[in-house]
Amino acid sequence: MIGVIRVFTTEREEIVEQHGKVITDLYGVKTVNKCIPDQPLGIFNDETEEIAVPKIVELGKSMEKEGCSILVISCAADPAINELRKEVSIPVIGAGSAAALTALAIGEPVGVLGITDNPPAVIKNLLGDLLAGYASPEGVANTTDLMTPAGREKGIEAARSLLNQGAKVIVFACTGFSTIGLADVLRRELNVPIIDAVEAEGLFASSLYKQSASSVVQ
Amino acid sequence: MIGVIRVFTTEREEIVEQHGKVITDLYGVKTVNKCIPDQPLGIFNDETEEIAVPKIVELGKSMEKEGCSILVISCAADPAINELRKEVSIPVIGAGSAAALTALAIGEPVGVLGITDNPPAVIKNLLGDLLAGYASPEGVANTTDLMTPAGREKGIEAARSLLNQGAKVIVFACTGFSTIGLADVLRRELNVPIIDAVEAEGLFASSLYKQSASSVVQ
Repeated sequence: MIGVIRVFTTEREEIVEQHGKVITDLYGVKTVNKCIPDQPLGIFNDETEEIAVPKIVELGKSMEKEGCSILVISCAADPAINELRKEVSIPVIGAGSAAALTALAIGEPVGVLGITDNPPAVIKNLLGDLLAGYASPEGVANTTDLMTPAGREKGIEAARSLLNQGAKVIVFACTGFSTIGLADVLRRELNVPIIDAVEAEGLFASSLYKQSASSVVQ
Repeated sequence: MIGVIRVFTTEREEIVEQHGKVITDLYGVKTVNKCIPDQPLGIFNDETEEIAVPKIVELGKSMEKEGCSILVISCAADPAINELRKEVSIPVIGAGSAAALTALAIGEPVGVLGITDNPPAVIKNLLGDLLAGYASPEGVANTTDLMTPAGREKGIEAARSLLNQGAKVIVFACTGFSTIGLADVLRRELNVPIIDAVEAEGLFASSLYKQSASSVVQ
């Protein structure tokens, strides 16, 4: 079982399970999805990230005890990833590093699409010289804003601006783009690979999960 | 279609298609597999790599023309990867970078298993500080030597030596290990993730292929 850590708080099961559903639909592996407590607005600055770190570590430890064999921190900033890796004995994949590493496998200049002012440090650091540019959809403060036709147009516009800056690959630096299906919209509109952060974390996690499952069976 | 470039010469179809078969069996995507000409011993030092570069570029260009939408250079040294990327308009994945990047997604110290004296530069450079050690099976000069029970034992021994050096993940720096199924042997023997270079190139290539195929269909 892949454990998906959601770094915000909600009681709504269908929202908690959104990322896991993307992973299950795409890679055919089961997931269990859990939220950190008492943080309905999630992580949106340094202070809220700091508060979330011990919660992510505790949640990850409990998910390992409950039988998860792989953990995913499903946020493009990879919050608490080093802290959690020290505390568990199973692999921990982060959405941000997974997306950046997938882009690096293509080896071409990367445009990063996010909703914050700057790309997450983990993505910026991994991409290094291959980072061609960063953009966020105009007037979009959260992914709900993207779910309107006008918001979607802004997403496409921002991605096009990255191509104009020399990008040959687009990486999402926000997992909220996954739940609104922006990747498939851009794949129809633009002729470049689109790296969705939830799809990328699922790619590595499902691959690791399948190998650990096959070694138990054999 | 994923085009798999084999960096040696053989007339034997079942050998040419070995890596593509691993990718098809694991990820359910079709491949076409081709060899570079006039190099039956493949790449085994700087000189033979230099001779191979223009051949790999020409082969990749012709495979793009024949309809491949992704290319894979199926050698852990990623020979000619930058040269080929400049000459084609489709993504080019290398076995060595794919394997190293997959290991980086786990973020733990990596032991590299090869058959040469040193790890390929691309793997060493990507792993950086996470490279915990390098080992090659004792007395094994080529992968044929590994196909005997004694050779297989040497492979397991070398992998164990990497764990003793602190590795928590093993990366194969030779695609020859794939065709003899060493990954599954080690997965049964050792309780750490094993990154097979052909499986890793296939992971990225098949993911990209599926997204390009889905964007055409929709």
